[in-house]
Amino acid sequence: MEFRVLKRCKSNNARLGEIVTDHGRLETPVFMPVGTSGAIKGVSPGEAKDAGVEIVLANTYHLYLRPGHKLIENIGGLHRFMNWSGPILTDSGGYQVYSLSKLRTISPDGVTFRSHLDGSTHFLGPEKVMEIQRSLGADIIMTFDECTPSGAEHDYVLASVKLTEQWARQCLEEGKKNGQALFGIVQGGVYPELREMSAKGLVSMGFDGYALGGLSVGEDKHTRERVIKTTMEFLPKEKPMYLMGVGTPEDIIESVKMGVDMFDCVLPTRNARNGMLFTNKGKLVIKNARYAQDSSPIEDGCGCYTCSHYSRAYLRHLFLSKEILSFRLNTIHNLYYYTHLMNEIRQAIRDDRLAEFSHDFYRGEIESL
Amino acid sequence: MEFRVLKRCKSNNARLGEIVTDHGRLETPVFMPVGTSGAIKGVSPGEAKDAGVEIVLANTYHLYLRPGHKLIENIGGLHRFMNWSGPILTDSGGYQVYSLSKLRTISPDGVTFRSHLDGSTHFLGPEKVMEIQRSLGADIIMTFDECTPSGAEHDYVLASVKLTEQWARQCLEEGKKNGQALFGIVQGGVYPELREMSAKGLVSMGFDGYALGGLSVGEDKHTRERVIKTTMEFLPKEKPMYLMGVGTPEDIIESVKMGVDMFDCVLPTRNARNGMLFTNKGKLVIKNARYAQDSSPIEDGCGCYTCSHYSRAYLRHLFLSKEILSFRLNTIHNLYYYTHLMNEIRQAIRDDRLAEFSHDFYRGEIESL
Repeated sequence: MEFRVLKRCKSNNARLGEIVTDHGRLETPVFMPVGTSGAIKGVSPGEAKDAGVEIVLANTYHLYLRPGHKLIENIGGLHRFMNWSGPILTDSGGYQVYSLSKLRTISPDGVTFRSHLDGSTHFLGPEKVMEIQRSLGADIIMTFDECTPSGAEHDYVLASVKLTEQWARQCLEEGKKNGQALFGIVQGGVYPELREMSAKGLVSMGFDGYALGGLSVGEDKHTRERVIKTTMEFLPKEKPMYLMGVGTPEDIIESVKMGVDMFDCVLPTRNARNGMLFTNKGKLVIKNARYAQDSSPIEDGCGCYTCSHYSRAYLRHLFLSKEILSFRLNTIHNLYYYTHLMNEIRQAIRDDRLAEFSHDFYRGEIESL
Repeated sequence: MEFRVLKRCKSNNARLGEIVTDHGRLETPVFMPVGTSGAIKGVSPGEAKDAGVEIVLANTYHLYLRPGHKLIENIGGLHRFMNWSGPILTDSGGYQVYSLSKLRTISPDGVTFRSHLDGSTHFLGPEKVMEIQRSLGADIIMTFDECTPSGAEHDYVLASVKLTEQWARQCLEEGKKNGQALFGIVQGGVYPELREMSAKGLVSMGFDGYALGGLSVGEDKHTRERVIKTTMEFLPKEKPMYLMGVGTPEDIIESVKMGVDMFDCVLPTRNARNGMLFTNKGKLVIKNARYAQDSSPIEDGCGCYTCSHYSRAYLRHLFLSKEILSFRLNTIHNLYYYTHLMNEIRQAIRDDRLAEFSHDFYRGEIESL
């Protein structure tokens, strides 16, 4: 993988960049939809591509448990398995072990946990996670980390940062064999000095990119922005920066200004399935009675497949009827909204008008999400 | 609507025909997938078309209850509402009132019933059903009928046939104003003389086509074939014959030989959602462990989108993971299987080799469905 900064903003830390992988080139800042189990929920790979998606995130934890990484390797790797020919990033499972599985036991070697699917016992450590991600064959892979909750105390987070650093070193040794780009994950909770320590430790090892982990775990917005700002100071400006699990359109715009290049979040896809649609005028809850007879599209002027072919009235009807097509048409719109937003952000950086874009965006009366 | 017989088989009553509507031309025998609530469950209109679908059936009963026929009319009719530009046939609701709703009360004017959605009370009669179907704007519409269960006694069915005939006459008077093709529905249960009576009564009124109703309500296969054969004798050879709610590939092949031109059934779509896939070698249950590592498509040589891009291993994984994409990819395959089967049947009639085709089909070791 290659990363290049193409342009930097004058008034903030935002930058336009490009990532080149064996599966294609893309520009940053970029949003990566989540394909948890090897499928972006609700859409086909072709639809995702048509909606502007350029890179997909898949979850190591989920694919390890089902169908198993060896099976995917035998079929020819994740790209072929899920019929996605573009770049893929896999996470390391650290966050899922923390958020989904029960009865975790953390040791210096890794984490023993129970599967959220069937309660069976499993072990994930740095070597194992590298083995899994090698089998999956993503273009960009992540180090194994311990994700600490927002309320974790300083001493706990300190020990955790040291453990995450040790695991990162082991991942780097293993990962070198893979020929995949490997990103280190900065942890450290809400403590600036621990974020600094974590960042410096990882940077001294030299990763292909850096991710900010543990930042959609319940902390408030201001704390998150403070942590991002602090951490970014200690990360090298020539490497891609990935903010994991974030976020709303507003979160993305603010984070781009701080220099973040890559994002992933379940919001556009999950909200779509719940009938919540993103528009430039705020959220639209499709089940509302006011849309029953509404022959207009979700958003006038939107170029997505859904808005080009379907009325709010039909989408409301599909949602109330629990038709499968409802999830899909809603997801197509929300993905398009996100990729279009990123496109506009990139264009604004290119044209030196990100501040104006941001101003106009907020003026568009976006409801808080 | 125009109907023309293009060719008749020498050895049986099968025929190749064409139906021309304002929304396009199609050849018969044809299979119509069911788009109950204005959507073929699991696929988009574009995918259905790519899978070979040429005409869609939608349910008057469902669309009347939700979202309401007036709403659809206000949006511009069902074609526009559901984004399907090809021909549409709507049924009359007679079967759904019989099978889905509770506390039916039948009077000479129509049926009072409770909605299966919310228990609210509704009334459907011939005038109302014609009004609804006019609002929906399908190319082919059906008369309102009483559907009798397979075990109904002779006297009950006799009275029902008379009522259905009376309603058909009222529908014809109303329907003339619509400019839509109107089909009469022959009832009469399993009693040959009542089927004859029903058929003759309808034929004397002169409909654009004739349907055989009340034939997927629990009767056995031999009874059904006997009833079809008997009834067909009394229906005009120059009009299209539609066998409602039937059926399996075997049912379709046998019915084509008796002269049936049109079919509808939920089997391909419903089975797809349950992971049951049609192949020329019988049913394939995708969740079976034997497909876990199987990198081959559902069926070698199948030209559908699913078989062109996905392995059994991936489809099994999606099904077990309850991914929305599972329903869709399975549905695409099953729809393609059905439309491809109809294509082969039509070609066999054209080439005067339907008997050989049928022989080879059964030799393909299709499991009984």
